[in-house]
Amino acid sequence: MHAENAAEPLDPVTERRVRDSFGRQGLMAHLGASLEEVRKGFVRIRLPFRPELTQQHGYFHAGGASAIADSAGGYAGFSLFPPDSAVLTVEFKINLLAPAVGDYLEAVGRVIRSGRTLTVCQLEVFAIKGDTRTAVAVGQQTLMRLAARTGDDRSPG
Amino acid sequence: MHAENAAEPLDPVTERRVRDSFGRQGLMAHLGASLEEVRKGFVRIRLPFRPELTQQHGYFHAGGASAIADSAGGYAGFSLFPPDSAVLTVEFKINLLAPAVGDYLEAVGRVIRSGRTLTVCQLEVFAIKGDTRTAVAVGQQTLMRLAARTGDDRSPG
Amino acid sequence: MHAENAAEPLDPVTERRVRDSFGRQGLMAHLGASLEEVRKGFVRIRLPFRPELTQQHGYFHAGGASAIADSAGGYAGFSLFPPDSAVLTVEFKINLLAPAVGDYLEAVGRVIRSGRTLTVCQLEVFAIKGDTRTAVAVGQQTLMRLAARTGDDRSPG
Amino acid sequence: MHAENAAEPLDPVTERRVRDSFGRQGLMAHLGASLEEVRKGFVRIRLPFRPELTQQHGYFHAGGASAIADSAGGYAGFSLFPPDSAVLTVEFKINLLAPAVGDYLEAVGRVIRSGRTLTVCQLEVFAIKGDTRTAVAVGQQTLMRLAARTGDDRSPG
Repeated sequence: MHAENAAEPLDPVTERRVRDSFGRQGLMAHLGASLEEVRKGFVRIRLPFRPELTQQHGYFHAGGASAIADSAGGYAGFSLFPPDSAVLTVEFKINLLAPAVGDYLEAVGRVIRSGRTLTVCQLEVFAIKGDTRTAVAVGQQTLMRLAARTGDDRSPG
Repeated sequence: MHAENAAEPLDPVTERRVRDSFGRQGLMAHLGASLEEVRKGFVRIRLPFRPELTQQHGYFHAGGASAIADSAGGYAGFSLFPPDSAVLTVEFKINLLAPAVGDYLEAVGRVIRSGRTLTVCQLEVFAIKGDTRTAVAVGQQTLMRLAARTGDDRSPG
Repeated sequence: MHAENAAEPLDPVTERRVRDSFGRQGLMAHLGASLEEVRKGFVRIRLPFRPELTQQHGYFHAGGASAIADSAGGYAGFSLFPPDSAVLTVEFKINLLAPAVGDYLEAVGRVIRSGRTLTVCQLEVFAIKGDTRTAVAVGQQTLMRLAARTGDDRSPG
Repeated sequence: MHAENAAEPLDPVTERRVRDSFGRQGLMAHLGASLEEVRKGFVRIRLPFRPELTQQHGYFHAGGASAIADSAGGYAGFSLFPPDSAVLTVEFKINLLAPAVGDYLEAVGRVIRSGRTLTVCQLEVFAIKGDTRTAVAVGQQTLMRLAARTGDDRSPG
């Protein structure tokens, strides 16, 4: 069901489109997140640790982990859309599995069902500390494809 | 089922405890969020618009909306815990209802089931633009209470 | 945000359409569920206790509670659709709040966001034992409207 | 992250415990579901098609699919618990991916995080028609372990 390592490379034009859109997300820059890898229906985002990203105990706040997970899934879906499309998140659900502590977080978004209107993604977030990689969150997300001319995203319906 | 306006005031010591913990969340300060109201099992957080909070179309990124919703629910639960407790988010799910555009967002967290170990909260996010208040997200969250001595949050188990 | 008691009555033709569709759900009959109330964007379903509905400790199985919650939300959405439409559940999430034990369960589905393509519902399940009514589950559901001619439901996309 | 085919066999005593508990679920028998396979942290349940399981278009009702998915996850978690434990479903979320039509459904529950108190499972439901196996639902579930002596389960699974 999961195309894990099998995700195919993306053509340069679509990759450009994904990277340009990511570059317009003010929040990703503000958090310090970078787009590490884009393949067909597969995206990896990295978020290095900073005190500006913490919750009350000094770990990564779930809000930051969720933000990069949401973007990873959103762009995984977007990578499969035709050129004249916009993506919106309909909903997502995330389970926090372990304290998110480490040098950086890595969010992986992966399309598990691609439809004409709706796309479903699996989300995973890992915390990397030295050589150790720990799964800290896992989620599921529903995306909607919109014709770009509406200029309207985040409006499910 | 919803204690809407009926949420009772909190004693000053507990409110202090909630506000101190919120103050230690580096992410809330980095986003520019403030804790507007704390009552028993009820918390309101405000997040003014900034270009640093946007997604690719210039609206609030769902990640920022989710971050304040998660904190609002988390502190709503925390406000009902005994003094020697820590709170962790087990999971949450959020539906994006409308484009999150406006002068500021307001996240409301409200306890709907308070148990010895687990607490369930309802989450709502509104976008306020001038006199207009629009529901932009609604969610559901599960929290876990931990004895503070573990110093361990985000570790469901 | 919740049209609680304010849900308006439904015209007889649409109510007929909802009741006919409910009547075709083999599972509802097999479980012993009945459609108690249909209003605009609001549906109540009742499920009397039977040993055929239990989990291993003799309470109502979450699967039965989820089934009537899913149908209650689905028909709450359907009640607002134009005549030539079909409804499908895109996804739902449910929190179990307390042991589901009693004379019968009651599921309430309520539309909280009605869009052209997608509808979001709040789901609640209560257990009624004599004079006591206990909230045993609360959920959130996303529905999709399809033109009936496709004959295709449960196919998000 | 997923122990897919690597799930180890279960000792006969624990398997007996799982099968006995499943046998006490009145709902599983009423739906016609059978426990096909139990391994460590892994359970497969089968549900043959019957008109008593349908929604309004003659496909499997999402409620039936959810019921076997909930039980599959619940018993996957239960298979890893110490003998004096009960399991309860805290919450689950499920996405319906495709029309659930076929000779039978198969639900797979798989533990992805096993903690002292909380367990997180991945849920999958497939529809099998002749030689074709289609993923029709995917979900995520949180379970809680309770000491059996409490007699307190919210154990819908």
